[in-house]
Amino acid sequence: MKCSSLGIGLAGLGTVGSGVVLALERNADLISDRTGGTIRLEVAKVLVRDPAKTRPVSLPAEKLVTDWRELVADPAVDIVVELIGGTTDAFEIVSAALQARKPVVTGNKALLAERGVELFALSKQYDTPIHFEAAVAGGIPIIRTVQESFIGNRIHSMCGIINGTSNYILERMTTGGLEFSAALAEAQALGYAEADPALDVNGWDAAHKAILLATLAYGFPIDTAAVHVAGIEQVRPIDIEFATRLGYVVKLLAVVREHPDGAVELRVQPSFVAKSHILASVNGVFNAVAVHGDAAGESLFYGRGAGQDPTASSVVADLVEAARSLRHATGHRGFLPYRESGTLLPVEDTETACYVRFDVTDRPGVIAEVARALADAGIGISGTHSPVKPDQPDAAFIDMVFLLHTCRFGLLQETLKTIEALDCINSTPVVFRIEKL
Amino acid sequence: MKCSSLGIGLAGLGTVGSGVVLALERNADLISDRTGGTIRLEVAKVLVRDPAKTRPVSLPAEKLVTDWRELVADPAVDIVVELIGGTTDAFEIVSAALQARKPVVTGNKALLAERGVELFALSKQYDTPIHFEAAVAGGIPIIRTVQESFIGNRIHSMCGIINGTSNYILERMTTGGLEFSAALAEAQALGYAEADPALDVNGWDAAHKAILLATLAYGFPIDTAAVHVAGIEQVRPIDIEFATRLGYVVKLLAVVREHPDGAVELRVQPSFVAKSHILASVNGVFNAVAVHGDAAGESLFYGRGAGQDPTASSVVADLVEAARSLRHATGHRGFLPYRESGTLLPVEDTETACYVRFDVTDRPGVIAEVARALADAGIGISGTHSPVKPDQPDAAFIDMVFLLHTCRFGLLQETLKTIEALDCINSTPVVFRIEKL
Repeated sequence: MKCSSLGIGLAGLGTVGSGVVLALERNADLISDRTGGTIRLEVAKVLVRDPAKTRPVSLPAEKLVTDWRELVADPAVDIVVELIGGTTDAFEIVSAALQARKPVVTGNKALLAERGVELFALSKQYDTPIHFEAAVAGGIPIIRTVQESFIGNRIHSMCGIINGTSNYILERMTTGGLEFSAALAEAQALGYAEADPALDVNGWDAAHKAILLATLAYGFPIDTAAVHVAGIEQVRPIDIEFATRLGYVVKLLAVVREHPDGAVELRVQPSFVAKSHILASVNGVFNAVAVHGDAAGESLFYGRGAGQDPTASSVVADLVEAARSLRHATGHRGFLPYRESGTLLPVEDTETACYVRFDVTDRPGVIAEVARALADAGIGISGTHSPVKPDQPDAAFIDMVFLLHTCRFGLLQETLKTIEALDCINSTPVVFRIEKL
Repeated sequence: MKCSSLGIGLAGLGTVGSGVVLALERNADLISDRTGGTIRLEVAKVLVRDPAKTRPVSLPAEKLVTDWRELVADPAVDIVVELIGGTTDAFEIVSAALQARKPVVTGNKALLAERGVELFALSKQYDTPIHFEAAVAGGIPIIRTVQESFIGNRIHSMCGIINGTSNYILERMTTGGLEFSAALAEAQALGYAEADPALDVNGWDAAHKAILLATLAYGFPIDTAAVHVAGIEQVRPIDIEFATRLGYVVKLLAVVREHPDGAVELRVQPSFVAKSHILASVNGVFNAVAVHGDAAGESLFYGRGAGQDPTASSVVADLVEAARSLRHATGHRGFLPYRESGTLLPVEDTETACYVRFDVTDRPGVIAEVARALADAGIGISGTHSPVKPDQPDAAFIDMVFLLHTCRFGLLQETLKTIEALDCINSTPVVFRIEKL
């Protein structure tokens, strides 16, 4: 077997891109050894915005390009790595690479979740794979696990903590008693959150990843607009205290579950997770995905969900896979959706127990009115609490929380609308799922 | 791409073998869909000892054979699955299959740990892969993870709970306060332990798996005779109580670690694991392996370490991999050692803090004598304890335990020999490692 190098065209030399360059430098011999001397990977061209910028990795000037067309077209580039993020230029680059029959490695969850249908169609048309281990859960090999190791499993469910930023914030709110805004500021100061942390805290980063996992497991493309996503912006210390007292931990949870009729439940929201469950122990910026397959049973995959080196680890694994397929001229080993369509369970039809917090104006009759509305809807109450302050003035604003028995989420939503219309209720009620894992 | 079936020759129709037949029946369409319709797997021939025996899976009589030569030679057999266990017939079957250039899938850790050198040489010679995901940690895809997902990582360490039987026994001793023998009997009654549980409780089942993991990560064959293995037969309730009081859990731990000079530490023994570490939460028959790679960082892979369906899940994943390599005529994708030799760190040169239990005859001066021997060796004591029974007769037999600071294990062993020779010491001291994870 010959061992000339394979050339990598690296679009993006930010945190992860630099990590890829460093990992390839550091472990090039190891990779060559482990592939029986058949694979050497070399960075051939790198797309940057400003070639003059000082960077943590030094690359000869002639390897830097500013036009992605030059990168993709370069004959020295055999594999294209897309790490620029976003869904516009990144889409162009990935499309062009596939059309040039150059395998693609990407860590771009938003791109694949939003425009995967088009890209996977190109991948099929040009028989050229897209690899995306780095797009979900950083250094955790969850893509390969679901796609290859569990290929003989019907996947019953995948429940995961797949956004490290929000997990860090929730942990600091729990252990440090911080308000959301203070915990977010701390995460930003530590470099755990982006300058614009919107996608992290509003749940959409996790949702993009969950959409990719669901597409892998169930084989059909998923319309992002149909996915129920709630973030952690509304989590308050009182919620955390209440969860703690009841033996739960608050986590931003992505839940993917196949129902017996084949419909797929897919939602992301703050959830109460029982302290005894292993997911409750996933702290800080770590990620974990609990996968339940019909044969493998319960499994959990845990690790660093972001960061330079862990994400680079996944990119490098994909590069080796892409290189193997080029070297051995094997067929397509990336992922392709294998069903044209499937059914997403409307969030209204999902069921869990819930925790609901109401912002109320305290006066006699408040609890009775809320409880009456729940009773009229047939929703059982398993507990209720409002802060006891004997010296509290009449008509003070207080938080009142209810724990509700399992019910259809749609029924709960309707009932909460009725309750929100009561004149003692000051804002939209906040709902957390109590997950049975 | 054509999709004629690939024929499986299944050697062994016990628990796991039946699970493979059932999984292939249940999810054949799913596997075909997920491989783009290119792969259908069919059981062509099955090796059994007694064709007349009633089994949980029904197979037509013409598929059953009693001579493994017939199985391997059958032209309808494209891939050979070895699930008969042992290292004699299994060796013959695997060797013959490789020589016939039929890819092998096996779950036989003892075979590969004891005779891997010969078999991997054949695998290389005949360019025919051996797949063995099912040999380590049942349904957890740890082999593929180390071999492929972490291919760009230098593996710093792999620490695991990889024997479910002993983990169940230790858990029952902890939560139920049982003696070892009672917990073992319970495990046997529940079907978690073999009729002959020797390899499970003496640590060798875990050691075989650890040897395979180390070979994967470091690329050289390992002499089983050079591996330090201690089992759980000597664990007593007093040890568990002591560990609990200090904030530890007792686990049978396999430790694989690369030192800066490249030497590999590899040992299996009962260990104290800090309760806060995620491995401490791995209970019952579950397995987990914590992997630390230079790029991926800390990761953990958790799941069912044994049993019909989980192990079958891994066999099926390997079958698909083997089928792909046949379908696409790709090169070797199994594992091959990539270094002729490497250095195993002698256990004498490994270092941890330790817990040591002495069976002593209580009389004035005992603690002083033991403490003196430790002091003479320069081994620090961080704590000591002996049960306080004010009404205890003189010269009673008691357990005395010492917690020792980190020291060379060789020094500890020599010192314990000196102590064992004291006339107040009644039997060989029992040592547990206190692991820094």
